[in-house]
Amino acid sequence: MKNILVIGAGRSASSLIRYLLEHSSAEGWKIKVADVSIELARQKTVQHANAIAIGFDVNNVEQRQAEIKQANVVVSMLPASMHLIVATDCLQFGKHLITASYVSKDIAALDADAKKKGILFLNEMGLDPGIDHMSAMQIIDRIKASGGELTAFRSYCGGLVAPESNDNPWGYKFTWNPRNVVLAGQGTAQYIEDGQYKYIPYNRLFTQIENVSVEGYGEFDAYANRDSLSYRQPYGLESIPTMLRGTLRMKGYCNAWNAFVQLGLTDDTYKIADSNKMTYAQLVEAYLPNGNGSIVHRLSTFLNETEGSELMKKIIWLGILENEKIKISNSSPAEILQELLERKWKLKENDKDMIVMQHKFNYKLNSEEKMITSSLVVKGHDQIYTAMAQTVGLPMAIATKLLLNNRVKSRGVVIPTVKEIYEPVLKELEGLGIKFNEKLV
Amino acid sequence: MKNILVIGAGRSASSLIRYLLEHSSAEGWKIKVADVSIELARQKTVQHANAIAIGFDVNNVEQRQAEIKQANVVVSMLPASMHLIVATDCLQFGKHLITASYVSKDIAALDADAKKKGILFLNEMGLDPGIDHMSAMQIIDRIKASGGELTAFRSYCGGLVAPESNDNPWGYKFTWNPRNVVLAGQGTAQYIEDGQYKYIPYNRLFTQIENVSVEGYGEFDAYANRDSLSYRQPYGLESIPTMLRGTLRMKGYCNAWNAFVQLGLTDDTYKIADSNKMTYAQLVEAYLPNGNGSIVHRLSTFLNETEGSELMKKIIWLGILENEKIKISNSSPAEILQELLERKWKLKENDKDMIVMQHKFNYKLNSEEKMITSSLVVKGHDQIYTAMAQTVGLPMAIATKLLLNNRVKSRGVVIPTVKEIYEPVLKELEGLGIKFNEKLV
Repeated sequence: MKNILVIGAGRSASSLIRYLLEHSSAEGWKIKVADVSIELARQKTVQHANAIAIGFDVNNVEQRQAEIKQANVVVSMLPASMHLIVATDCLQFGKHLITASYVSKDIAALDADAKKKGILFLNEMGLDPGIDHMSAMQIIDRIKASGGELTAFRSYCGGLVAPESNDNPWGYKFTWNPRNVVLAGQGTAQYIEDGQYKYIPYNRLFTQIENVSVEGYGEFDAYANRDSLSYRQPYGLESIPTMLRGTLRMKGYCNAWNAFVQLGLTDDTYKIADSNKMTYAQLVEAYLPNGNGSIVHRLSTFLNETEGSELMKKIIWLGILENEKIKISNSSPAEILQELLERKWKLKENDKDMIVMQHKFNYKLNSEEKMITSSLVVKGHDQIYTAMAQTVGLPMAIATKLLLNNRVKSRGVVIPTVKEIYEPVLKELEGLGIKFNEKLV
Repeated sequence: MKNILVIGAGRSASSLIRYLLEHSSAEGWKIKVADVSIELARQKTVQHANAIAIGFDVNNVEQRQAEIKQANVVVSMLPASMHLIVATDCLQFGKHLITASYVSKDIAALDADAKKKGILFLNEMGLDPGIDHMSAMQIIDRIKASGGELTAFRSYCGGLVAPESNDNPWGYKFTWNPRNVVLAGQGTAQYIEDGQYKYIPYNRLFTQIENVSVEGYGEFDAYANRDSLSYRQPYGLESIPTMLRGTLRMKGYCNAWNAFVQLGLTDDTYKIADSNKMTYAQLVEAYLPNGNGSIVHRLSTFLNETEGSELMKKIIWLGILENEKIKISNSSPAEILQELLERKWKLKENDKDMIVMQHKFNYKLNSEEKMITSSLVVKGHDQIYTAMAQTVGLPMAIATKLLLNNRVKSRGVVIPTVKEIYEPVLKELEGLGIKFNEKLV
């Protein structure tokens, strides 16, 4: 009998928990699902015989340590900032830990101690980071093994709405943390191209976009992620001349989103007093340079658009040019925009989300220039078992199984760029419908 | 005999200390000048009989408390963040404190305790903040007393180079903290116009500029300061429809500075690894969208300028498009830009700085619309007794004298918007050549 402790039973834990339950009898697992809300934990454990749902406060030291002591492996779905206290206990009690979060400096610092204790802290084991690492490394390692030399690696990912559920002019609905979408890209995007560092400041991020084409799904906008450079080292591509990671959106989204960036409506650093006494039109007005005419006229002039352009249609559709009162008080412009978007970009009951990922590898083999594209599209089953929940949760679940079956020898702080993890995980994901479509171009 | 403790003997303390020394015999003052560098303190006390220079570490509790105990009033020229520990000691030992810094929340919280102790914490007693408050309040109070109603208040200030020392195409040299100049305006400028809040995000700050004309000195660019709204309450202008504060630069400066904003070169949030292995041209290249042609051609295209435009001349003059190696390693783009500018915008030995301030008051009196402009221009005597040192230091020095002569009754945390301070200080400043030129338009 092995004990698995899953901390956090939110949205993205659904597929993880279902997989663990489905395999629990055959594998001999007891699964404890711990969440602040015992109701949420109960919803996910569905009265399964091998599962226990508990109410759980991660800041309650006594409870936390008692639960971690009983586990063989801990799977933490907590926000990234809360992993450290769990990891510290795991270290103390010699328990493995799996998360889908980026390795923080604090977690990285536990590497030597974790190795000494013979335990695995497996991080970045979700979608992005997670499936991106695994699927990229599989092809990178293969190209290298065949004697090829990587000259460019570009990788894109987006959490989108499925085409059949796409019924708004933005081609976008929230399938993930809305706040991250509104604040996306603030700072400066950094990547490397033809051996030169390249920087795109936020004010140009949504205009310097790339076109990404995915077979069967058409064309997407891609804007550069903040940090593409730090991926070179873990991917073993220290001297690759071109490396870029980007985020996918439906065509036209970036151009329209840029309107909010140029207006200044994505700023989260100050509050507007009495924002609930303003209308949306007054809000936009407050950011427009002085001028004459209707707000539609003035905004389109400011943006160098015609009043009936596709971009203006998207903006108008949101209702942000209307004389309707803002619903929240003393809020930042980003918070006001987010509140509006959460109503307009809400997934409907039968809507499905969709994950799109694409890698492009350029390499030289026997003096020939070659290119591979590898694309993944995953659609959600419903609003519980979303594409996001599947692609974040299933890699963690499979890794849990591999680990408990002694199929993973790595110890210390690890991300799934190693073959003993990515090979079996990607193989099993394929069987679960998470399968890349690879083309040699 | 009264003891004055001046903490900090840097650039902007010169005129303050000279004034105190000049009045010391007549007033019966002993002046102790305390600085980390005893050399610097000695330079400023010039072996004056009523002065003592000491080496001083503000973090040395014993020394700090011993010196504060002996003083009747403490004048702190420390960086704003360091005032609190001094203020806490002043409170403990019942000593008055004068600074030129904005009232922080921590300092504001000491108001009741300071009042109880019968001491004055007089802040914002320099130029901006300082002279701006005093000169504005004098006219605001006069307009109100005459029965007038303020409808608009605009106030501008700039630390510039005097016309006779202006020998570069930017019309700018550093006369103050270079870092503040490079990072100026990051965030969103907030003001109110015709009863409507207005916001200008950083990416448009240097394009939405105003034209400010000062008699005898021509026209200046003015860009909006981050926060104009919080001045309404202390000025007693809570319901004024229009209120804006701005920063002055020579004509054309803002337009050219905007090039760096658009490129992304003013970002201070990340470091460029190996920046000292790049040339300035490569740095600019890294921020330009892909394209063909010379860097001058590409930059001018990016900026929508001709290659020989005034803007491009300014950029080219800085040498930032040349194949010269960057001199500092692992630095942010803002730091790289600052290091270059500090060499190019350095005051020469005989250069003089210049302070320009202008207020514009619109008001209704007996149903008539009226306007007053009030302008101040101060030039530096030399590189020690700069316009900045005079305008920051002399108001503090005069306030010190008034306080020691029991001419100031206010207690607690105060800024010089009160008549008993601004009237005598402005009057004495006039005698020292710091005199506003007022026009009823």
